[in-house]
Amino acid sequence: MKISVIGGGAWGTTLAQLLTDNGNEVLIYEINNNYLNEINNNHIHPIFKNVLDEKIKATNSLEEAIDYSDTYLLAVPTKAMRTVLGLMDKLINRPSIFINVSKGIEPETLKRVSEIVDEEINPKYNAGYVCLTGPSHAEEVIERKLTLLVSASLDNDLAVKVQNLFANDKYIRVYTSNDLIGSEVGGAAKNAIAVISGACTGLGLGENARAAVITRGILEIVRVVEFMGGRKETAFGLTGIGDLIVTASSENSRNFQGGKKIGQGMKLDEIYANATQTIEGFRTIYALHELSEKFDIELPMISTAYEILENKLTVEEGMKKLLKRDLKAEDFS
Amino acid sequence: MKISVIGGGAWGTTLAQLLTDNGNEVLIYEINNNYLNEINNNHIHPIFKNVLDEKIKATNSLEEAIDYSDTYLLAVPTKAMRTVLGLMDKLINRPSIFINVSKGIEPETLKRVSEIVDEEINPKYNAGYVCLTGPSHAEEVIERKLTLLVSASLDNDLAVKVQNLFANDKYIRVYTSNDLIGSEVGGAAKNAIAVISGACTGLGLGENARAAVITRGILEIVRVVEFMGGRKETAFGLTGIGDLIVTASSENSRNFQGGKKIGQGMKLDEIYANATQTIEGFRTIYALHELSEKFDIELPMISTAYEILENKLTVEEGMKKLLKRDLKAEDFS
Repeated sequence: MKISVIGGGAWGTTLAQLLTDNGNEVLIYEINNNYLNEINNNHIHPIFKNVLDEKIKATNSLEEAIDYSDTYLLAVPTKAMRTVLGLMDKLINRPSIFINVSKGIEPETLKRVSEIVDEEINPKYNAGYVCLTGPSHAEEVIERKLTLLVSASLDNDLAVKVQNLFANDKYIRVYTSNDLIGSEVGGAAKNAIAVISGACTGLGLGENARAAVITRGILEIVRVVEFMGGRKETAFGLTGIGDLIVTASSENSRNFQGGKKIGQGMKLDEIYANATQTIEGFRTIYALHELSEKFDIELPMISTAYEILENKLTVEEGMKKLLKRDLKAEDFS
Repeated sequence: MKISVIGGGAWGTTLAQLLTDNGNEVLIYEINNNYLNEINNNHIHPIFKNVLDEKIKATNSLEEAIDYSDTYLLAVPTKAMRTVLGLMDKLINRPSIFINVSKGIEPETLKRVSEIVDEEINPKYNAGYVCLTGPSHAEEVIERKLTLLVSASLDNDLAVKVQNLFANDKYIRVYTSNDLIGSEVGGAAKNAIAVISGACTGLGLGENARAAVITRGILEIVRVVEFMGGRKETAFGLTGIGDLIVTASSENSRNFQGGKKIGQGMKLDEIYANATQTIEGFRTIYALHELSEKFDIELPMISTAYEILENKLTVEEGMKKLLKRDLKAEDFS
């Protein structure tokens, strides 16, 4: 099968490699010339040094990428998603499948990527949407280390089709799910908690505190997932807890690293200025804080993180504020 | 307040330090002469090199420790618990409080420590039981790093009393819980999953696989907690998921390290022969496997781990068996 990979960052390129391993053909759309050159000429990606299959090609022509196939793997940062989809819409001229692997919520609209696709793509050519998610550092998948993913869609046949596209008997297992909302929201929200977990580490706290933050963070993820119409069980599965664990406890994670810098006292502007890859978690903190305010959902960790990012609290003050909350009984409401 | 700490291993000694920090007096009962000497003469514990408060004393006389106070912090391995409680029962001559910090289930009887206390201690002198648990590496608490604990008891006043005994405004926060069963079972079961997580790492798998194992493992913990009469919410809180995360993803954890050696091909006998500290998780795997067989509870990871420990499967075969299970849809039943 032919797949157009829209976005040649670490994850998009890794999945292009996985699809190639599984016998498919891919074309990556990427505008970064350095990435393009390295992929096309040296068969590597600047972010990691693993050799890519020589069959993997990249183009900076969106038109070429759209013509290449009718299955689009969306791997651009959620910040750029609406713009890129708008450009794609002008070029798509046949019913197409959209597989999204970016994890975020649009802060201004509080919309999920599936909703943005529905808004930006002509319904005549929007033949289905899948959210492919789960605990998956690109750095490990590119090394073909065992990883479990989830193919979530409102269309069960399509979820199974995408499951078969990505699964293999060597290193990738794919579950299906029909809880699209829960899968999308859990995948986005975990990045926010991962930033907070990183901030604790940056502040010099240890693994005990991190486990506590992750555990309390899960409750906030559950609240958001349920509010947005997803299922609690999904938040407690691979796309929620699973992805949170891998993101919030690993030096491999950009969100964790971003948070760690916050914990060490760096300001958001500085971090953005020096970042080579997108840190979705910062944007997600803003989105979830907005949600919390607008709909009166109690998200104490997220809201404290927001105040830290906005320089209304220092990290130390933020941690103290969280710890001073009434801790009489462990609370799951 | 005076507290007798029964067992001067890493965790017992660490909690003795915490109690001393909080203005209490402690006497540690310990039969290992090396530990005794180091604590009494050099104010250190051989397992870690942090300096202990000079006020902390240890004795190898159980009689002296029992006479010292009417509050007993039980910090012996669960394997020795019934024997030690039997000896204590002969010496206790006034109503006493039992605070247990050991995490395990007796494989032969499938009993929790609170049940063993009820059986071994004269009811006339058994004035209450608390399970003090949560995500807490001793190595971090001894360094006074922020840690959240849970004080779980059927007696809410006692849970609050123990909360106040251990909490301070420097590095320890304590929640209370009235779900004693859930707290005890979650704390025990997580050690079994941590062994499996370690085995994956020993086998060369990465963080993606580990997160998947932890996430799937939570479902098995929930099943056991609910079967034994605890609440699902407890398993999803600090004493379940929280403790699982800190144990199953850390090189600091003995259970993780024990599992890692299994993953590297070492046999259980060899590991036991070389272990200086108790690895509760191995025994818990046997206990939970027994539970699974006896009451027909589906615990695929635990049962596979049992077969590996019993040399019925190699680690590779075990992992393959788990992965071949029907993965069509993510399942939370």
